[in-house]
Amino acid sequence: MSSPQPIAVVGVSGYTGFELAKLLLRHPAGSAAAFFMRETQGAHCLSELFPQLRGTNRAPLRQLSIENILATGAGIAFLATPHEVSAELAPRLLEAGLKVIDLSGAFRFRDATVFQSWYKLPAPHAAWLDAAVYGLPEFYSSEFASAQLIANPGCYATSVILAVRPLVQAGLLDSRSAVIADCKSGATGAGKELRRDLHFSELDGNFKAYNLFSHRHTPEIVEQTGLAESQLTFTTHLLPIARGILSTIYLTLAEPQTSESIEALYRKTYAGRPMVRIWKAGALPEIQHVANTNFADIGFSLDASGRRLVIVSCLDNLGKGAAGQAVQNFNHLLKIEENTGLV
Amino acid sequence: MSSPQPIAVVGVSGYTGFELAKLLLRHPAGSAAAFFMRETQGAHCLSELFPQLRGTNRAPLRQLSIENILATGAGIAFLATPHEVSAELAPRLLEAGLKVIDLSGAFRFRDATVFQSWYKLPAPHAAWLDAAVYGLPEFYSSEFASAQLIANPGCYATSVILAVRPLVQAGLLDSRSAVIADCKSGATGAGKELRRDLHFSELDGNFKAYNLFSHRHTPEIVEQTGLAESQLTFTTHLLPIARGILSTIYLTLAEPQTSESIEALYRKTYAGRPMVRIWKAGALPEIQHVANTNFADIGFSLDASGRRLVIVSCLDNLGKGAAGQAVQNFNHLLKIEENTGLV
Amino acid sequence: MSSPQPIAVVGVSGYTGFELAKLLLRHPAGSAAAFFMRETQGAHCLSELFPQLRGTNRAPLRQLSIENILATGAGIAFLATPHEVSAELAPRLLEAGLKVIDLSGAFRFRDATVFQSWYKLPAPHAAWLDAAVYGLPEFYSSEFASAQLIANPGCYATSVILAVRPLVQAGLLDSRSAVIADCKSGATGAGKELRRDLHFSELDGNFKAYNLFSHRHTPEIVEQTGLAESQLTFTTHLLPIARGILSTIYLTLAEPQTSESIEALYRKTYAGRPMVRIWKAGALPEIQHVANTNFADIGFSLDASGRRLVIVSCLDNLGKGAAGQAVQNFNHLLKIEENTGLV
Amino acid sequence: MSSPQPIAVVGVSGYTGFELAKLLLRHPAGSAAAFFMRETQGAHCLSELFPQLRGTNRAPLRQLSIENILATGAGIAFLATPHEVSAELAPRLLEAGLKVIDLSGAFRFRDATVFQSWYKLPAPHAAWLDAAVYGLPEFYSSEFASAQLIANPGCYATSVILAVRPLVQAGLLDSRSAVIADCKSGATGAGKELRRDLHFSELDGNFKAYNLFSHRHTPEIVEQTGLAESQLTFTTHLLPIARGILSTIYLTLAEPQTSESIEALYRKTYAGRPMVRIWKAGALPEIQHVANTNFADIGFSLDASGRRLVIVSCLDNLGKGAAGQAVQNFNHLLKIEENTGLV
Repeated sequence: MSSPQPIAVVGVSGYTGFELAKLLLRHPAGSAAAFFMRETQGAHCLSELFPQLRGTNRAPLRQLSIENILATGAGIAFLATPHEVSAELAPRLLEAGLKVIDLSGAFRFRDATVFQSWYKLPAPHAAWLDAAVYGLPEFYSSEFASAQLIANPGCYATSVILAVRPLVQAGLLDSRSAVIADCKSGATGAGKELRRDLHFSELDGNFKAYNLFSHRHTPEIVEQTGLAESQLTFTTHLLPIARGILSTIYLTLAEPQTSESIEALYRKTYAGRPMVRIWKAGALPEIQHVANTNFADIGFSLDASGRRLVIVSCLDNLGKGAAGQAVQNFNHLLKIEENTGLV
Repeated sequence: MSSPQPIAVVGVSGYTGFELAKLLLRHPAGSAAAFFMRETQGAHCLSELFPQLRGTNRAPLRQLSIENILATGAGIAFLATPHEVSAELAPRLLEAGLKVIDLSGAFRFRDATVFQSWYKLPAPHAAWLDAAVYGLPEFYSSEFASAQLIANPGCYATSVILAVRPLVQAGLLDSRSAVIADCKSGATGAGKELRRDLHFSELDGNFKAYNLFSHRHTPEIVEQTGLAESQLTFTTHLLPIARGILSTIYLTLAEPQTSESIEALYRKTYAGRPMVRIWKAGALPEIQHVANTNFADIGFSLDASGRRLVIVSCLDNLGKGAAGQAVQNFNHLLKIEENTGLV
Repeated sequence: MSSPQPIAVVGVSGYTGFELAKLLLRHPAGSAAAFFMRETQGAHCLSELFPQLRGTNRAPLRQLSIENILATGAGIAFLATPHEVSAELAPRLLEAGLKVIDLSGAFRFRDATVFQSWYKLPAPHAAWLDAAVYGLPEFYSSEFASAQLIANPGCYATSVILAVRPLVQAGLLDSRSAVIADCKSGATGAGKELRRDLHFSELDGNFKAYNLFSHRHTPEIVEQTGLAESQLTFTTHLLPIARGILSTIYLTLAEPQTSESIEALYRKTYAGRPMVRIWKAGALPEIQHVANTNFADIGFSLDASGRRLVIVSCLDNLGKGAAGQAVQNFNHLLKIEENTGLV
Repeated sequence: MSSPQPIAVVGVSGYTGFELAKLLLRHPAGSAAAFFMRETQGAHCLSELFPQLRGTNRAPLRQLSIENILATGAGIAFLATPHEVSAELAPRLLEAGLKVIDLSGAFRFRDATVFQSWYKLPAPHAAWLDAAVYGLPEFYSSEFASAQLIANPGCYATSVILAVRPLVQAGLLDSRSAVIADCKSGATGAGKELRRDLHFSELDGNFKAYNLFSHRHTPEIVEQTGLAESQLTFTTHLLPIARGILSTIYLTLAEPQTSESIEALYRKTYAGRPMVRIWKAGALPEIQHVANTNFADIGFSLDASGRRLVIVSCLDNLGKGAAGQAVQNFNHLLKIEENTGLV
C-alpha cells in the first residue's frame, strides 16, 4: 500500500472510540490517522492519556473542531461520538466533502419520525438521512462505493439482523408468530459513563434485564429484518463481563425445515463474507469464540418438529458490534479486503 | 423449641449439600443434624473437611450407610445425592419409616416413562413415584402433612413454574402460542465436578447456551405448569457468576390485560407465602436481589397491547432452587413457620 | 432475651452501613433498631430503598437528625458515617448519654496530630479521643464495660494487627528489620461512591496497587502493633472481587523459631476468642474461607531457617473488617456472647 | 519479507501453546508454521479443534513425532510442552540441526542439580544445559546469534528479574536486607489442567497465596538477579482473572536515592528495548495496561527516606511471560525488529 491518505477519528474517550483507535493503530492505513477529542488535557498523543498505548504507533491527538479536522486533509472521518454530537458534526464534514462513518444512531433511519420518537431529539436533515447507507457490509457494501455517509449499526441490532434477515428474506417465517430476541451484553456496551449499576460491586455476581419494550435498537431491527414491530419482542440483559453479546433468538417456521436446509441458507447468504461464521447445526457459538475479534458467529438448534428454531448469534459489542464493523466499512471505502486489519 | 429430633443429611460433598449443611447449622432444629458422606477421609466433623465451617456449630460427620443413618434415630432424612443414588437410598429409608426430602430428580414424576426417557435410567418403583409429593411448598404444602416423600423441584423448574403456573391456572394464556423460557444460571448450578467449560479461565468472561430442547427440567415444567410440551421452549445458559438464576419468560395472553390485573393475580396466588416476592409492574428483580437468600422474586413488563407479557423470575439456585427450598419443606414437616432459618 | 433496648443505626447508604443493617436484622437484639439516613427519599422502611430486604424483619427508616435519634430512646448508636460526619455527630450523642460505636476513622487515635496529619481535618475534641476505646475486641474488650465510645478499627488495620501484634508483644521480631504488609482488598472496601477505577469494565480482569506509603490505616497499624513507622511498609491493592481482604505479611524473627511455637503463640493469644481462627502451620486461609463471615483467619509459613516468617491473614472487609466487628463490639456492650448473630 | 522459512510449533493444547499459535498466525513469518499435538483427534487444521480460529490463516496441524517435525524442513522449533517432554524432544531436534525455543523449565539452569532439586527429575544432558541461552532478550539477545537453544524464562521470573536485576547490577541494594517479591497471577498461569481450585465456582470471588518458599521460579530469579537465595522471599498468589501478573517488590537500598535516579537507571537499562516500559516515579502500572500485550511495565514508589523502594512490575503471563516473549526471541533469531508481530 502506498502512503495512506489522512483520516480523522473523532471521539476516543469512550470504549468504542478507544477500540477504534487500537484497531486503526494496527491497520495498514492507520498510520495516517489523527485523533480528536473535546478534552485533550494538553496531550498531543493518545498514549499520554492512555498508558496502555505507549510503545505502539504514534497516534497524534488534536483538540476537536471542524477546522482542525479539515486541516488534516482527511478524506474520511470516523465519528465515535454520541448521537447528538454526530448529528451536528457529520453534516459539516459531509458538506466539506469528507466521507463519514458514523458509529452513533443519528443516521440509521430513513424516516425522521422514527429517530425522533426513539431518541427524543430532532432528527438530522432529511437529505442526510436519505443519503446515509446502513453500515452492515454483508448486506449493503455494494452501496458503499457511491455513499458519502455510512451509518454504522447498533451492536445488538447487528447480532439480531445477521441472524434473522436471511430467514425473513427467504420467506421461512410464520408471519403470524412472534419472534423473540433475548439478548445479553457485556458492560462495555453500556458505556464508560459512571453509573450505579455498572459499579463493580453492583455488577459482579449480578445479571439483570433492562429496557423491556423500549430499547433504541428495536426500530433498527424491525426495519432491517422486515419483521413487523408487533411481531418482535426484543429484550436486553447486562452480563457481568466486559465484552461480548450473545443473542438467543426464537422463531417459528411456516413449514417444517431440516437443519441442513437452515444451515445451507445461512452459508449461501454469507458466502464470501469472511466476518460471519456459520456453525454446524446443533453446535453453538459462545462469547469466548468472538470476544476480541470482528467475527459474528451464528449457530442454531431446530426441534424435532422442524418448526421451532432457536438461533444463537454472538459477536463482540466493540468489534463487529461497533469499532470493528466501522473498520470493515472503512476497508470497503478503501476498496481493500474487508477483513484487513481485523484478523 | 424443645430438644430437636435427630435428622440425617446425606451428601454434603456437592454445592447443594454443602449449602444445606450451612443452612441447617443456623436452623433452630439443625443442632440435631448428622451428616453422611461416602468419603469422609477419616473426618468426624464437617469442619475438618470444610475449614470455612470451623467455629460454627459442631456438625458430626459419618460414613454413609443405611445402618449408620438408622442408628441416629432420625425421623427425617435429606438426600442431596445424585438421582441414581437417591433412587436406591430413598426406598430403604422410607421402608424404615423415615420421612425423606430428596433433592434429586428421581421422584419428581408420577409417570415412570417420563423419568426413564429424560434420565436414561430405570425409574424407582411406581409406588414411591405415586407417593411422592412435588416439593414446591407454595402449591403443595397442604399435602406435606400426609406425605412421607417430598421430591424437591429442580432449580430452573422452580423459577419457571412459580412464574407461569398462576397464569395458566387463571386461563390467561393463548393456548396456541408459544411460551419461551430463556433461563440463565450461575456455575454452582452445574455442579462441583471438574469440567472444561467450568474451568475458571474458560468461564470467566464467557457466556453460553446449552442443552437446547434437551434439558431435564423440561418435563417438570411441562407437568407442573400445565403447558403442552410442544408449547414450551425452554433454554438454559451458563452465567459467569457463582450463584443465581434469572429466567426471562415470554408469553402471549389470550385477551389484553392490564399490569394491575397481572400483578394482582400474582399477589393473590402468593398471599401469605413469605418466600415469593412480587415486584410492582415494570420494576424487575435482578440476581443480586435474591443471591444468598431463599426468596423467589417475580417481576414483569406488559407491552402496550396488553397481550405480550415478559416475566423476569429470579432465585438463588442453591437457595430457593435447591437447599433453601428443602429447608422450607422441612419446616412444613416440623409444622413451624416456613421461612424459619431462611431470612 | 427480654424485649431489647432501642438502638440507632446511622448511615445505611454505604456498603458498610447496609451490611450492618443486614446483620442487625438477624440479630436477637436487632428488632429494636431504627435506621437513619440523610436522604430517605420518603421511605419509612429500609426495604423500600433496598428491595433485597423485602420479606425480612421490618426496619424502620428515619430522617437523620440528633432529635430523631434521641426520640427513639436508644441507649446505643452505631455510626456508619464518613469520618467528618462522625466527628460531628458522635460528641452530640455522647453528651446526650448514648454509647456510640463509630465505624469511621474519627476516634481511632489518642494523638490529635496523627488524625490531623493523615486525614487532613481538625481532630475531634481531645477529651473524646482520650475516652474512645479502640474497638478490636480481642485486645480491648475488657475496657468496653466502662467505655462510652468505641472506635471501630479499619479493615486493613484489623487484618494486620491481629497477625502482627502477638509477635511484637512476645518480643519475637528482629527490631531492626522491616515488616512488609502486602494487603489486597475487594472493591466494597473502596466504597459505594462512583469512581472510574471501580467501574465494572475497568476493574474486571484488572488488579492494581494504590496509595503506596500513604494509606490512612498506616498509623493505626503502627500504634496498635507497636512497630516503628519506619519499620512498616504497608501496601494496598484492589482485587476484582466484591468482598474480602487477604494480607500477606513478611517478618524476620530475632531468633529461629519452630512452626509449632508460632502456632502455639497464636493459639494462646486467641484462646477463647471465637472470631479468630488459627490455621495449622503450612496451611493457609483464603478469602473464600472468610467471605460473608465475621471470622479472621490466620495462617503462616516459616522458612527452613526458622527466621523468615510469612503470615496470611484473611477477613471479610465488611464483616470482621467493619460491620461484623461493630456487632461483635455491640455484643460486648450487651454482655452477651461475642459471636451472637455472627455465626 | 520473502517466503518465510518453515517453523514447527509443538504443543498447542495448553494456554501458552494456544497463545503462541494466535501470535504466530498474525506474524509475518507465521504463515509457514506447522503445529504439532499428541492428540490431533483427526483434525488437520487448528481451527477444527479451536473454533475461535476459524476464518484466520490456515494453521496445519500434525501428529507429534520427531519424524513429522523434521519432514516440515523447519529450521526453528518452538516447544510449548511440559518440561519432561521438552527435556526429551529438544535434544533430538537440536541434534537434527534445528534451533529450539523451549518454553518449559527444562533448560533454564546451567547447574543440573538446581533443576533436579526443584523439578524432582533428572536434568537434561549437561552439554545442552551449557549451550542453552536464557531467553530474556533484554539481557541476553546478544548471545542469541550463536545460540541453538533458547530457554524461555518463567512468567513470574520475567516480571521479577526485569525489575530487580538493574538495581543489583548497579550495586544499589543493601546486601544484608531482604528482598520480598509478592507476586499475583491470573489463572491461565496455573494451566489448563482441571483442578479443584481453578473451578470457576471456587476461584470466582476468591484469592489465595500458594507454594510459599517452594515455587519453581525461585532458582531462576536467584540466578538471574544475583540475589542470594536466603535474601529473596518470593510468594505467589492466584488472582480471579484470566491473564496478567502483578509483582509488588520490596527492597531496601544501601544509600538513599532519589526517584529521579531510580527512574533514570531503569530508562538507561531498557533504552532501545521496546517491550519494557518504565513509568514515571509515583505512577504505577496495572494489569489492565499490559493484558493481551507483550509489554512489561515497571513503576515504583520510593519513601521519604529514599531507602525503602516498592516496585510494581506487570506483564501478561501469556504474553511477555511466555508466548509473546518466545516470539520476541524468534524475531531475534530472524534478525528482524524484536517487537514484530507483537504490537
